[in-house]
Amino acid sequence: MYKTIRSELKNGVLTLFLNRPDRLNAYTEQMNEELIHFYKNVNEDDNVRVIVVTGEGKAFCAGMDLSEGGTTFASDGEMEEFRDLGGQVSLVVYDMKKPIIAAINGPAVGIGLTMTLPMDIRIVKKDAKIGFVFGRRGIGPEAASGWFLPRIVGIGKALEWMYTGRYIPTSEALQAGLVHYEEEDPLEKAYEIANDIVAHTAATSNSFVRQLLWRMQGENHPLQSHLVESKFLYWAGRNEDAKEGVQSFLEKRPPNFPLKTNSLPDFFGL
Amino acid sequence: MYKTIRSELKNGVLTLFLNRPDRLNAYTEQMNEELIHFYKNVNEDDNVRVIVVTGEGKAFCAGMDLSEGGTTFASDGEMEEFRDLGGQVSLVVYDMKKPIIAAINGPAVGIGLTMTLPMDIRIVKKDAKIGFVFGRRGIGPEAASGWFLPRIVGIGKALEWMYTGRYIPTSEALQAGLVHYEEEDPLEKAYEIANDIVAHTAATSNSFVRQLLWRMQGENHPLQSHLVESKFLYWAGRNEDAKEGVQSFLEKRPPNFPLKTNSLPDFFGL
Amino acid sequence: MYKTIRSELKNGVLTLFLNRPDRLNAYTEQMNEELIHFYKNVNEDDNVRVIVVTGEGKAFCAGMDLSEGGTTFASDGEMEEFRDLGGQVSLVVYDMKKPIIAAINGPAVGIGLTMTLPMDIRIVKKDAKIGFVFGRRGIGPEAASGWFLPRIVGIGKALEWMYTGRYIPTSEALQAGLVHYEEEDPLEKAYEIANDIVAHTAATSNSFVRQLLWRMQGENHPLQSHLVESKFLYWAGRNEDAKEGVQSFLEKRPPNFPLKTNSLPDFFGL
Repeated sequence: MYKTIRSELKNGVLTLFLNRPDRLNAYTEQMNEELIHFYKNVNEDDNVRVIVVTGEGKAFCAGMDLSEGGTTFASDGEMEEFRDLGGQVSLVVYDMKKPIIAAINGPAVGIGLTMTLPMDIRIVKKDAKIGFVFGRRGIGPEAASGWFLPRIVGIGKALEWMYTGRYIPTSEALQAGLVHYEEEDPLEKAYEIANDIVAHTAATSNSFVRQLLWRMQGENHPLQSHLVESKFLYWAGRNEDAKEGVQSFLEKRPPNFPLKTNSLPDFFGL
Repeated sequence: MYKTIRSELKNGVLTLFLNRPDRLNAYTEQMNEELIHFYKNVNEDDNVRVIVVTGEGKAFCAGMDLSEGGTTFASDGEMEEFRDLGGQVSLVVYDMKKPIIAAINGPAVGIGLTMTLPMDIRIVKKDAKIGFVFGRRGIGPEAASGWFLPRIVGIGKALEWMYTGRYIPTSEALQAGLVHYEEEDPLEKAYEIANDIVAHTAATSNSFVRQLLWRMQGENHPLQSHLVESKFLYWAGRNEDAKEGVQSFLEKRPPNFPLKTNSLPDFFGL
Repeated sequence: MYKTIRSELKNGVLTLFLNRPDRLNAYTEQMNEELIHFYKNVNEDDNVRVIVVTGEGKAFCAGMDLSEGGTTFASDGEMEEFRDLGGQVSLVVYDMKKPIIAAINGPAVGIGLTMTLPMDIRIVKKDAKIGFVFGRRGIGPEAASGWFLPRIVGIGKALEWMYTGRYIPTSEALQAGLVHYEEEDPLEKAYEIANDIVAHTAATSNSFVRQLLWRMQGENHPLQSHLVESKFLYWAGRNEDAKEGVQSFLEKRPPNFPLKTNSLPDFFGL
C-alpha cells in the first residue's frame, strides 16, 4: 500500500523503513502522507510494542527532495493555511503511545534529522553526516524542531547548530545528548533496546511514560505530574501488570505482563 | 520520635538518615509520613543551613517495601482521592528553602532514586545500583519524576531510562547530569560541599536561590526572573549580608553573614 | 560617543569591547546604559550580521565595580520601582535578532558571567576565572540568570554553582554546556564561527532562528513551534534566499543570499 515506506513486524517490534534508497530516502509530500497514515494506524495496534525507524540502503534521509530546484520550498495558497510538512508528522509522533527508536543508519540532514527529534531514543551510525542545514538553504527550522531540539540538547547547542547549519560530528552529537548511542550498526543496537523493552517491561507502563514525560515538558509545576502519576499508579496498582511485576521480581524470573496498550485509560484527557 | 528516619545536626549541617538498614531502607507509608513531618519542621529552623540526606548502613533506599508482595501497589479508596506517596514528599521538598544534598551511599532504586530528584545536588557512590525500575514492576514513574527527571537530564535520557527500567552505570549517570559527583565516599563529599556553603555564603542568598531557580523552571519569559531578582537585590543590597559580603571580599577575609533564612521576606508570594 | 564600551565592524561582524581595561572592565551604571543603547541601535542595522562580545585587555568583566564598598548594592527609591541593572540588559539581549557570541577572554565573575547567558554561543579562555559568586557577596542571582542558567546547563548544575558561588573550572563549564568551546584564543574562535555564519547562511534564517528557539523555551506544546515555523517557511520558500540556497547547493558553490534582516516580517507578533 505504501510506496515510500515499508514496515516489518517481529516479536512486537515494528521496523519502519524510509524506502526511497535510490534517492537517499529524500523526503516528499507522498512520504509525508504515508508517514502520518502509518503512525496513526500503528498507534492503535496492540501487536506493536516498540517502533524502530531506519532508512533503506545507505542513507537515513538526505533531507527534502530537491529535484524541483530553487522552487522546492515555494508553496501555493495562503500563508495562514500553509502547514510545514515535517511539523505535521512531528505532531502525530508527539501523540504516539509507544516507544520510538531512530536507527540513523547513514546521512540524516535537514528534515532527515529533525524528524527524529520527537522520537524517543536516537542511535547514530558512527561518522554519519548529520546536520540542521536550513540556514545554508535560505530557509529555517521545521518539523517543530524549534520546540524539540532545545529540550533535547539545551538551548546553547541548539542555537549554535541552527545558526551555522554545519555538519555535526557524531561524537559531538553524542556528547551533547542529541543521540543516545554512536554505533557501527545502529539497527542492531536499536533492536537490542527494543527487545529489552518488550521482554522486561509492561506495555501499559511504556505508554504512560511516553505521554507523561513529553507532556510534563509543558507543565510549570510538579503538582501536575503528581496528579496524573497518582491516577496511573492507582489504576496500575490494582491490575494484573503490577501483580506480575512484583511477583516475577520476588521470584527472580522474567515477567509476563498480560495487559495491552489499549487497556490504558486516557489519564491525560486528550 | 521518628522510627524510620533519624537526624544529626552539626555546624549548621543537618544529616537525615533513612533508617531501616535491615530492610535496605525500603520505603514505607510510615517513612513517608515521617519525611513530610521532618522537612516541614526543618524548613523553619534557622539553625539548619544545609540538609544532607543519606542511608543508614549499606543502602540508600532499595525502593518501596515489597513485603506485601503482588498487592503492594493496590490501594483502597477512590482514584480521585489517591495520592502517590513519593509525590507527596516531592512537593514538600520542592518548597524547601535550604540546599538539600543527596549522598547516595548505596543502592537507590525506584522511589529510592526518584526521591532525590527534587533535591539539589546528588552524589553517588561509585558503581552503586541505581535505576528507574518502574516499568519492570508493571507500574509507572512517581514522586513527580515525570516533571523532575527531564529537567535534570533532558528528555532524551529520561525517556530511555524510564522505558527500559535498566540499572544505570554511575559513570553514565554522571555524564548525563543525573548526579553531580561519583565518589567512593559520597557522604564525605556532601559534607565538603555543605561546609563550603555554610562557611562562605549567606543563608538568605541560598534560600532565595533555591526558590528562584526551581520556580523559574515554570516561567515562560525571563521577565519574571528579572522582577523577582530585582526585589531580592533591592532588599539584600540594603541589609547587613551584602555589606559584609563586599567588605569581607575587599578585606580578603572569610565573611560572617548575620542574617537568617527566616529574615527573608516572601518575594514569591506563595 | 560611548565611554565604557567600543565597537568595530568588519565584514558584517560587529565586535563589542567592554572597555574599562584598567578596572578589569568592571560593570557600572554607565556601562549598563551604554549597553542598552548599543544593542537597541545595532538590532536595526542590516550591516551587522553577527555580534561578538569580548573584553578589552586581560579581563572579560570582573563583575560589578565595588569601588563604593559595602554600600555598592544599596539602592535609593522604592522596592517596587527598582530594576536590577543586569536584568535590564538581559531583556534587551533576549529580544535581539542577530546571533551573539561571547568571547570570554579572561575573568568573568558575577554579572561578568551572567551577562553572557542571554547570548547564544559562549567561548571561554582556558582556565579563566569564572563563577556565579553572588552568595559569597551576600546578594543573589541577577541579569535574569534564574531563568537563563537552568535552560543552558540544567537545573542541577545551576543550583550547585549558585549555592556555592565557587569558581568553575573551564573544563567543567565545557562539560556542562555553559560554554561551547574552551580555547587559548577565544576571540579567534568567535571570528571563525561568525565568519562561517556570514559566509554560508542567510541573515533572515539566523534572525528567525534566534527568535524561534528562545521563544519556544516558554511554549508548552510543539504546536506553537509548528505554526510559526510554517509561516516562516511559507514566506522564505517564496523569496530569493531559498532559491539561492537550493541553487547554490545544487551547483556546489557558496551562496550569496540577497535578503537583509529587516526584510523579515514579524512572525512572532511582538
